[in-house]
Amino acid sequence: MKLWQKDKEVSGSVEQFTVGRDRELDQFLAEADVLGSLAHTRMLASIGLMDPKDLEAVQAELKSIYQEIRQGQFKIEEGVEDVHSQVELLLTKRIGEAGKKIHSGRSRNDQVLVDLKLFFRSEIKNLVGNATSLFDLLIDLSEEHKDKLLPGYTHLQIAMPSSFGLWFGAYAESLVDDMELMLAAWKVCNKNPLGSAAGYGSSFPLNRTMTTELLGFDSMNYNVVYAQMGRGKTERILAQAMSSVAATLAKLAMDACLFINQNFGFIKFPDELTTGSSIMPHKKNPDVFELIRSRCNKIQALPNEVALMTTNLPSGYHRDLQLLKESLFPAFTSLNECLEMTTYMLKHISIKADILDDPKYAYLFSVEAVNEEVLNGLPFREAYKKVGMEIESGNFKAPASVKHVHEGSIGNLCNAQITDAYKLVVDNFNFKKVEDAVEALVS
Amino acid sequence: MKLWQKDKEVSGSVEQFTVGRDRELDQFLAEADVLGSLAHTRMLASIGLMDPKDLEAVQAELKSIYQEIRQGQFKIEEGVEDVHSQVELLLTKRIGEAGKKIHSGRSRNDQVLVDLKLFFRSEIKNLVGNATSLFDLLIDLSEEHKDKLLPGYTHLQIAMPSSFGLWFGAYAESLVDDMELMLAAWKVCNKNPLGSAAGYGSSFPLNRTMTTELLGFDSMNYNVVYAQMGRGKTERILAQAMSSVAATLAKLAMDACLFINQNFGFIKFPDELTTGSSIMPHKKNPDVFELIRSRCNKIQALPNEVALMTTNLPSGYHRDLQLLKESLFPAFTSLNECLEMTTYMLKHISIKADILDDPKYAYLFSVEAVNEEVLNGLPFREAYKKVGMEIESGNFKAPASVKHVHEGSIGNLCNAQITDAYKLVVDNFNFKKVEDAVEALVS
Amino acid sequence: MKLWQKDKEVSGSVEQFTVGRDRELDQFLAEADVLGSLAHTRMLASIGLMDPKDLEAVQAELKSIYQEIRQGQFKIEEGVEDVHSQVELLLTKRIGEAGKKIHSGRSRNDQVLVDLKLFFRSEIKNLVGNATSLFDLLIDLSEEHKDKLLPGYTHLQIAMPSSFGLWFGAYAESLVDDMELMLAAWKVCNKNPLGSAAGYGSSFPLNRTMTTELLGFDSMNYNVVYAQMGRGKTERILAQAMSSVAATLAKLAMDACLFINQNFGFIKFPDELTTGSSIMPHKKNPDVFELIRSRCNKIQALPNEVALMTTNLPSGYHRDLQLLKESLFPAFTSLNECLEMTTYMLKHISIKADILDDPKYAYLFSVEAVNEEVLNGLPFREAYKKVGMEIESGNFKAPASVKHVHEGSIGNLCNAQITDAYKLVVDNFNFKKVEDAVEALVS
Amino acid sequence: MKLWQKDKEVSGSVEQFTVGRDRELDQFLAEADVLGSLAHTRMLASIGLMDPKDLEAVQAELKSIYQEIRQGQFKIEEGVEDVHSQVELLLTKRIGEAGKKIHSGRSRNDQVLVDLKLFFRSEIKNLVGNATSLFDLLIDLSEEHKDKLLPGYTHLQIAMPSSFGLWFGAYAESLVDDMELMLAAWKVCNKNPLGSAAGYGSSFPLNRTMTTELLGFDSMNYNVVYAQMGRGKTERILAQAMSSVAATLAKLAMDACLFINQNFGFIKFPDELTTGSSIMPHKKNPDVFELIRSRCNKIQALPNEVALMTTNLPSGYHRDLQLLKESLFPAFTSLNECLEMTTYMLKHISIKADILDDPKYAYLFSVEAVNEEVLNGLPFREAYKKVGMEIESGNFKAPASVKHVHEGSIGNLCNAQITDAYKLVVDNFNFKKVEDAVEALVS
Repeated sequence: MKLWQKDKEVSGSVEQFTVGRDRELDQFLAEADVLGSLAHTRMLASIGLMDPKDLEAVQAELKSIYQEIRQGQFKIEEGVEDVHSQVELLLTKRIGEAGKKIHSGRSRNDQVLVDLKLFFRSEIKNLVGNATSLFDLLIDLSEEHKDKLLPGYTHLQIAMPSSFGLWFGAYAESLVDDMELMLAAWKVCNKNPLGSAAGYGSSFPLNRTMTTELLGFDSMNYNVVYAQMGRGKTERILAQAMSSVAATLAKLAMDACLFINQNFGFIKFPDELTTGSSIMPHKKNPDVFELIRSRCNKIQALPNEVALMTTNLPSGYHRDLQLLKESLFPAFTSLNECLEMTTYMLKHISIKADILDDPKYAYLFSVEAVNEEVLNGLPFREAYKKVGMEIESGNFKAPASVKHVHEGSIGNLCNAQITDAYKLVVDNFNFKKVEDAVEALVS
Repeated sequence: MKLWQKDKEVSGSVEQFTVGRDRELDQFLAEADVLGSLAHTRMLASIGLMDPKDLEAVQAELKSIYQEIRQGQFKIEEGVEDVHSQVELLLTKRIGEAGKKIHSGRSRNDQVLVDLKLFFRSEIKNLVGNATSLFDLLIDLSEEHKDKLLPGYTHLQIAMPSSFGLWFGAYAESLVDDMELMLAAWKVCNKNPLGSAAGYGSSFPLNRTMTTELLGFDSMNYNVVYAQMGRGKTERILAQAMSSVAATLAKLAMDACLFINQNFGFIKFPDELTTGSSIMPHKKNPDVFELIRSRCNKIQALPNEVALMTTNLPSGYHRDLQLLKESLFPAFTSLNECLEMTTYMLKHISIKADILDDPKYAYLFSVEAVNEEVLNGLPFREAYKKVGMEIESGNFKAPASVKHVHEGSIGNLCNAQITDAYKLVVDNFNFKKVEDAVEALVS
Repeated sequence: MKLWQKDKEVSGSVEQFTVGRDRELDQFLAEADVLGSLAHTRMLASIGLMDPKDLEAVQAELKSIYQEIRQGQFKIEEGVEDVHSQVELLLTKRIGEAGKKIHSGRSRNDQVLVDLKLFFRSEIKNLVGNATSLFDLLIDLSEEHKDKLLPGYTHLQIAMPSSFGLWFGAYAESLVDDMELMLAAWKVCNKNPLGSAAGYGSSFPLNRTMTTELLGFDSMNYNVVYAQMGRGKTERILAQAMSSVAATLAKLAMDACLFINQNFGFIKFPDELTTGSSIMPHKKNPDVFELIRSRCNKIQALPNEVALMTTNLPSGYHRDLQLLKESLFPAFTSLNECLEMTTYMLKHISIKADILDDPKYAYLFSVEAVNEEVLNGLPFREAYKKVGMEIESGNFKAPASVKHVHEGSIGNLCNAQITDAYKLVVDNFNFKKVEDAVEALVS
Repeated sequence: MKLWQKDKEVSGSVEQFTVGRDRELDQFLAEADVLGSLAHTRMLASIGLMDPKDLEAVQAELKSIYQEIRQGQFKIEEGVEDVHSQVELLLTKRIGEAGKKIHSGRSRNDQVLVDLKLFFRSEIKNLVGNATSLFDLLIDLSEEHKDKLLPGYTHLQIAMPSSFGLWFGAYAESLVDDMELMLAAWKVCNKNPLGSAAGYGSSFPLNRTMTTELLGFDSMNYNVVYAQMGRGKTERILAQAMSSVAATLAKLAMDACLFINQNFGFIKFPDELTTGSSIMPHKKNPDVFELIRSRCNKIQALPNEVALMTTNLPSGYHRDLQLLKESLFPAFTSLNECLEMTTYMLKHISIKADILDDPKYAYLFSVEAVNEEVLNGLPFREAYKKVGMEIESGNFKAPASVKHVHEGSIGNLCNAQITDAYKLVVDNFNFKKVEDAVEALVS
């Protein structure tokens, strides 16, 4: 059953090619599709395009279908083209002709547009939730290990003292900036395209403000041509926001792989979280981090894939856009799993004590020594020369401890401020408003 | 003169290879570098690391150099490695030893970090300014041409009536979402990394809050390891924001090239803005739009280039990051020029009258006809059948006019709301605060 | 059952995360895995590491399994990690302990390396086969329609006369160059990595020349460190070759979408190969071409995805590489389908007659007119001026016909030479040699 | 002076925008442009479109200009649009009207197409030359250091014994496969597009076979529409070939940065080739390798940039293509410098002796020990258990030496075979044929 099918049969191989993986991927959109129809039909009734009795039947049945979806009982049947057709089919089976009327004043174009925006909102909420769990853990670990020093590298050369407090905290703060980008993606997603029809609006007197409010959108994509133009663009922006989180995780994973390596040997994980070999007892392959790195680098390639698939298409809908689902949808699952696995692994990290006692790290403190002399009144260049000569003659003694006190340094991590900054960004999503709207629609 | 050079001479070819295009590109950072030093030295004096007399001399001379830069009189001399060295050199020439003290409590790493953030802020301001000029023009054009219809295409097939009001307005609204991403980039840029030294902080009691305020930053990159990690990441996020504006311009340019094409023939530009040939009088090559499209597609490739250059680098500074200047800096100029040229071209656009009178567009109104019947009470499927039969029998008459009234449709463009939405985003940049801080520093 | 599993249990979520989609994707490698083992065990026996009786049993059973795979009866069971484990499991079930010995002198690393190379060879063969079908059709269409003219565009402006002979032939010749790149990928794939073990070779006296010959490889990846380094690199090169074919198809699809568009109206396809609407009778949505374009643009993004997933990994195996299967394998199916669908659609193309009779194409012939004057002896600039004046005064008459005679022009398409060039490249693959080797191994 | 300029003045800002960096970049094409004209004019004369006296004057003067270019005395003057105009200008200044006739039977489109192909051929020759120098050095180093062992890593975990013989040799063999891709690019470049005019051929009876032979091309781009379609495609394929060499260098650079790091400490470079600090005497920043890595990763992004700039453009020339020069040309210089600097650095490498004496590498030999037992007759699983127990009880003794004898292993590097394979590929370029043709044209 295809909504657009009229008289002629479409060739079998053409149909298979054009439907592609839609049946499988549209499953992800089922909840959103019902939400959209719940709002749309209430609006249709309000402008007289659906009669109250039909509305009542449609609303009741759509709510049932919504619950079925949530309970995993919804499936796009063989021979049904997409999720929109499946919902209409179910509805018509159960309540008769009224079921067909939910399509008035819409085209498949704005229907899928609004489905995608609702689905993306819900995925962003999941991602932010998982990011927050990781953020909280990183801050906890930063506090817990704030006194454990490790060498800081520049050019991958031993350079200055660092600490695990700094290391964990840095990745926490990285998530703050990632959330700024995610918030931008959220704002782009949180606008209502419903009512744009096939991208040129409708001659029905639709009340788009009403569906905007019912669906909990912040505002709408006003211009109907722009509403359609948002397809592909929304995906690209969301992929960019995901790529930023992914880049943070990939870098952390790279660090982890390096720090587990025996030449560094800074951190360890329990045997059951690594793979190895009983004849190479020191071998603890960090497969999980390697796969996080690889998955996240794949996600970093995603915005470019979206760009290549949409560049140089003139305005107006093109079927090309359908394939973006195939690119985006698995990336949500993958990034969420990477966030969860990073959190899971870090919960089990153990850190080597007294790393800096190894003599190869001795000169790590030479800058501190110079600064100490400067604070004691020696001009910088003389202090520098003095320490340099001590090192050359073998008389250099590293300072007993690291005394960094300024904001964001080893001795003053500012984790409270970083946490505030994170909260400040996340509060802006205002997920509550969206949840309330959805709740009101389905109950 | 290289700040890190001590005793050994570096091989000539190595030096040439490592300096690369730094002299040329650092020119862009000159203003920012002086601003950073103005703030840093005031902070140094406040914690007793620079005596008041030195501070006075340094401040006065840095302000002079700032004016010289603004007046185009600053140049990185042959044999001087980078902008930081050049400023220090000038200072020392003019005020003696005190000039050398501006480097205390900093490393080149955080110095270039803060320079980049200040420079990026200023470039974002330029981009937003140019985007706003284009936005305003697009809204004006949308209003001016709101009654001129053109065919709307889906699948590049003639589909529904559209209008130049919609077409111009769509690109205006596209800039609203682009500004959301630019705002995220701005927020990421508008945090102070100064004081992170080589990425591991300093044993001097730096007052980072003070430099944050002096430089007009919203807050700081607290964690010093994260401050360094921001290099490459900031560039990627900014490139992503630029790519969004670029994608909008490229799509508009693609539409323009199509609409100028004689098979469409919807729009025209004066001869002096196109290229052609006197023996092919109908040929008006839209070179400007082709080049905007091409440049903007190049900018769309930029975030991926940054990702490839930074992926899988462990935390800590790597020299790799230096080359990002070469990728980013020309893109600012290019995108600004594309914004300006798009504005310039659109100011001279002329639109063909009565496009839809061509009989090939007749069926454009068939959906309107169906809807009209529905509004008059006929069930949708019957209305659809009726119109279908009229068309088949050749009796179809297009409705006399298009009556779209809902929000964002041909008859109700909502340009005021789109303008409000644009202003709302742009106000969040709060450029004034930053300008005031800079003004206070240099005067 | 995991080959590397020893005592400790690996955490369930870790296992799920690390296994990923391997079970599903390894199915593609089943034939190749058995071929590798057939060759490897014969070599083991030849150097005394497998006794003749075991060899006999192993060879017989592997050949049975190979037939089962070909008949679609092979499946990686729940709880079995990958294809290598599944084959070993079957073997051991059926012939006992001898089945376990096929793993001697190999590691999973070189086992999967050789599987991938064998699989890639077979996929390249499929792609070349499908490309050849399309090539042949394009040449036929070029000959069939060589006298049908269409406007040639530059800058998307009407410029010069072209023909469908040229248009079809151009895409045929494009495939010639694509095959050059595919041949390079083939050569990179057609080298034997078996014997490199975990990337550092083996202390067993393996005879790598023997497995190279048995598997029909042209030569081997000699250096064992390089053999391992080929993972990721082979995939990238192959993806680049695929992207070249994809770019050809995407461009053809873009042209097709434009030419079907009613403003051009140059070509048509039967209703059953397009989608439409009975109230918009002129609407023939070219979904198939839009999806070919989109899929092919996705494939164009693939080499970059591989690059991002492998860049900056030091030498030696990393688990990251496992995920490349997920990127590459579906691309083979997709590209093959795009080749088949392009061929299928073009078999049903119909071309509008007398396109150039439309007066908007009149000036198309102005350059021809100038050249005619030049051939009659008028200096170019005078000829140019003369024709220009005729056009300006409305007295221009287009020449009666197009007389292009040079190589590759409308009147002299050189399709025979293009066909020779295509054959010359394709002969270099020498698929026969590879088929013979495989045949010898399994029979 | 612009070739296409007729009556109307083009707006100044439009001109600046459209000319862009052409004057600067066309300088690279000067030699090629003259070569093309030398061949084209001889062909024109042969078909009677240029009289013998004019031909003589034109040939003599073009040869002079060619020598001026080679001696660095050619410059595109202010106000001259591109290299084609500059050459025509010089010619006309010096020999009068005859100079203007070189443009007959060509358009700027095929002129720049042939210029690019000739230029690319010459750049490929440079790249192959530099790659060969590096290849030769790597083979020499592999032989010189074949007995120096280092740990081989998998998952970045200490795994198996490796050697510097293997390490250097692996990168040499990597260049063999890179050259396969470069050869494909060469073949694509080495076909003559001249005579395709604006992409639709010419009504002049051009002899394209003659220019093909004169310019030393292997064959021609027959179909004139395809000849034009090669623009962008040739660049993409060439960028892909360059990216393969770049990936090899980037990986080598990553290894080098890791091996210089003090936790590994396997290799060193003289002080004058690294940067450092006298108070951190162990710090030897590998800036050169970091910059090679960064530049090469940028080059790895290049094919994608080309793809984004050309995707979804319909067939026929578009001005977009002009900007590809800006992307490609600097990449040649950069990649050549990276090849040269890698060679330069490796000439000065020094390798730490007896790396494996460090006890942390003891278990590196456990697999060797197991294999030794197997070769002595113990079944694998028992041998494995025996060694595992020795390790657990602390009684494990590493074998005295590594005995790898199979092809491509530590004890049998097969550098001779790798060198043969390299030569075999490089011989296929047949640069001599091309040099001879060029020599014949200019003398």
